[in-house]
Amino acid sequence: MGSLCSMVRWEPGAKERLQLAAITLFVERGYEQTTVQDIAAAAGLTERTFFRHFADKREVLFVGSDVYAATFVQGVAEAPEGAAPFELATAAITAAARDFFPIERRAWSRQRQAVLDANTPLQERELLKRAALSDALTAAFRERGATEADARVAAETGVTAFHLAFRQWIAEGEERPLLEIEQDVLARMAAFMPGAASVAPD
Amino acid sequence: MGSLCSMVRWEPGAKERLQLAAITLFVERGYEQTTVQDIAAAAGLTERTFFRHFADKREVLFVGSDVYAATFVQGVAEAPEGAAPFELATAAITAAARDFFPIERRAWSRQRQAVLDANTPLQERELLKRAALSDALTAAFRERGATEADARVAAETGVTAFHLAFRQWIAEGEERPLLEIEQDVLARMAAFMPGAASVAPD
Repeated sequence: MGSLCSMVRWEPGAKERLQLAAITLFVERGYEQTTVQDIAAAAGLTERTFFRHFADKREVLFVGSDVYAATFVQGVAEAPEGAAPFELATAAITAAARDFFPIERRAWSRQRQAVLDANTPLQERELLKRAALSDALTAAFRERGATEADARVAAETGVTAFHLAFRQWIAEGEERPLLEIEQDVLARMAAFMPGAASVAPD
Repeated sequence: MGSLCSMVRWEPGAKERLQLAAITLFVERGYEQTTVQDIAAAAGLTERTFFRHFADKREVLFVGSDVYAATFVQGVAEAPEGAAPFELATAAITAAARDFFPIERRAWSRQRQAVLDANTPLQERELLKRAALSDALTAAFRERGATEADARVAAETGVTAFHLAFRQWIAEGEERPLLEIEQDVLARMAAFMPGAASVAPD
């Protein structure tokens, strides 16, 4: 390890340290008011090291966006053959809860959301990420044989359920794991649709 | 809106002429490449007249955003007492189709979408408009006695249905009125959801 470090001047855990320093500064003094220099200094690293991991300070909040959508799509791929669209959508958001949002990630997600809520351009970027996820899921459902119209409905409804569950997951005082909240939202949604009434959770 | 303008040098139909000139230019040469000066000249009006109607060129595409959400909320207000959340959501999007998106508006909506699709910041602004609509509907459902969790699910699901229908409405070659497409999407959504019993967490 020591020799590897000297070759590329690798700082062990540098990425995580930078992320932690960044989110702390974003929350404390505001996203706009925080510079890459501030982040690097707070992490005890150089700006060069920062730029080895992130293109800019915004990327600290959006790194892994590709993996994000891929996690949902992987959930669809793992669902049994012949699964109905609803089961595929459930498999997608279940996989995301399991593989992308473990309980250890909640504190980060909460702080990240607080930063986003205070900054319109970041919110807008986040909404685009959501739209991209919907497109990826539509394609995944199409591959499973759904028509374009049904795939789009399944994807949008699934993403809506996920989004609702996620917002609740990071709400102040919420302690349930994301997976449990997803089940709750899906049940409420099913109860909301006509013909499916009366089994809503209380 | 118009009555205020009678106090200043009012150009009859100026606002509509500016909107038409703007959307034509945005489509033809691109949103970024079009200036307020270009728009005013194409409409045969002055820049001063432009700024009497719009704060900037972006507002041409987003003017009436408040009325937009209010139309959905009004639909909820008009729904009969004791209506279930699904009926309220249906009333909201039905009212929007009826009062905000008559068939004469489709050509404008199509061109507007083409401009948005070619410009990320505009798409982002549009997504924020959608989020604001969801908040307004959640508040409207809360006033009708829904719990916060149910109101949020109803609002997000309703907005999702509307958004899906709207995208189809402005799709190339689509000729059905928005109201009919909304019914189709709601039916697909209902078919997508399983009976509530099978959604219960195991």
